[in-house]
Amino acid sequence: MVIASLTVTPVGTETPSLSRYVAECARVLDESGIKHTLTPMGSVLEGPLEEILQIVQKVHEIPFTQGVKRVSTRLTIDDRRDKKSTAQDKLDSVEKRLEKDK
Amino acid sequence: MVIASLTVTPVGTETPSLSRYVAECARVLDESGIKHTLTPMGSVLEGPLEEILQIVQKVHEIPFTQGVKRVSTRLTIDDRRDKKSTAQDKLDSVEKRLEKDK
Amino acid sequence: MVIASLTVTPVGTETPSLSRYVAECARVLDESGIKHTLTPMGSVLEGPLEEILQIVQKVHEIPFTQGVKRVSTRLTIDDRRDKKSTAQDKLDSVEKRLEKDK
Amino acid sequence: MVIASLTVTPVGTETPSLSRYVAECARVLDESGIKHTLTPMGSVLEGPLEEILQIVQKVHEIPFTQGVKRVSTRLTIDDRRDKKSTAQDKLDSVEKRLEKDK
Repeated sequence: MVIASLTVTPVGTETPSLSRYVAECARVLDESGIKHTLTPMGSVLEGPLEEILQIVQKVHEIPFTQGVKRVSTRLTIDDRRDKKSTAQDKLDSVEKRLEKDK
Repeated sequence: MVIASLTVTPVGTETPSLSRYVAECARVLDESGIKHTLTPMGSVLEGPLEEILQIVQKVHEIPFTQGVKRVSTRLTIDDRRDKKSTAQDKLDSVEKRLEKDK
Repeated sequence: MVIASLTVTPVGTETPSLSRYVAECARVLDESGIKHTLTPMGSVLEGPLEEILQIVQKVHEIPFTQGVKRVSTRLTIDDRRDKKSTAQDKLDSVEKRLEKDK
Repeated sequence: MVIASLTVTPVGTETPSLSRYVAECARVLDESGIKHTLTPMGSVLEGPLEEILQIVQKVHEIPFTQGVKRVSTRLTIDDRRDKKSTAQDKLDSVEKRLEKDK
């Protein structure tokens, strides 16, 4: 299981608003069944690496189906194998330290 | 006002756990007064670009003060000037589209 | 055909030096037959998206086979479909503009 | 001294071609005097962190002066302090290992 952040940016869209593309990508993520959260700068995904890469390929295609001619996609994978650690575990681990040091 | 994502990764830490570094960076962000949210893959910041770049420089220094000898820092800036749009506005805009299309 | 940048960062290594991991990743890229160039901040790859994603998965595994317990991998995909444009074409296009404006 | 990669992406341009924006950013980098190399996926910069952050702010402004209303800028900083290591040193270090293992 890995945690990943994904940002899909359509290029050459005429207007600066990208919400119709982001919404469509979010819908595909929703339908994929992968665990994911929308942030203001992209989506955080959680699952097996192979599955995540398949979804990245799928989501990357979305803006093209909406008429865009160029897409810039960024993926960051955080893969830790000495212990099982979910996205929530990562947040909890930091919060716990912040609390302890207060 | 820009929205930015920031991830500071210490390199050469001997153990895979980075929470003590992330917590210290989070504390500096808290004290900075900048609007920010912790995500499982970094922090989302919101504010004037110049202020954000000053904070990036400050947060990037943290792991060095904790004994780390190499730090990899990633910053993504989303700067939109045709309309005022907060991090929450971006999320709302996508959610609204998702609702409408249901 | 897409152009992509790939950076694989092992986390929790004993020393700040990562060259033995980067060299091993470079060797796998060399053997893969994919068109690629090493830069000081990662590798630039060129090829079909599906093939690139397969190679990303393979290269991401390398530091684990070398004993590392956590790996952070960053991938950026630039996919333009209104015209065929190689990595070299992109550079040439910018150089040509710089020359013209002199 | 740090090594950094910088990519400035204008959003909402009329066409997928970005070379006129990239060329203008390259020109500002050339004039800045900072050591830098253009790659097909961005520029690699080399210099003191403070200077690099000032240049990032300057280059990020360029597409706005050309009429763009939204800019997405990505910066990755690699800062190693246990030894002096230039961008060329990093490449040489990997090449040397690849040679040795042949």
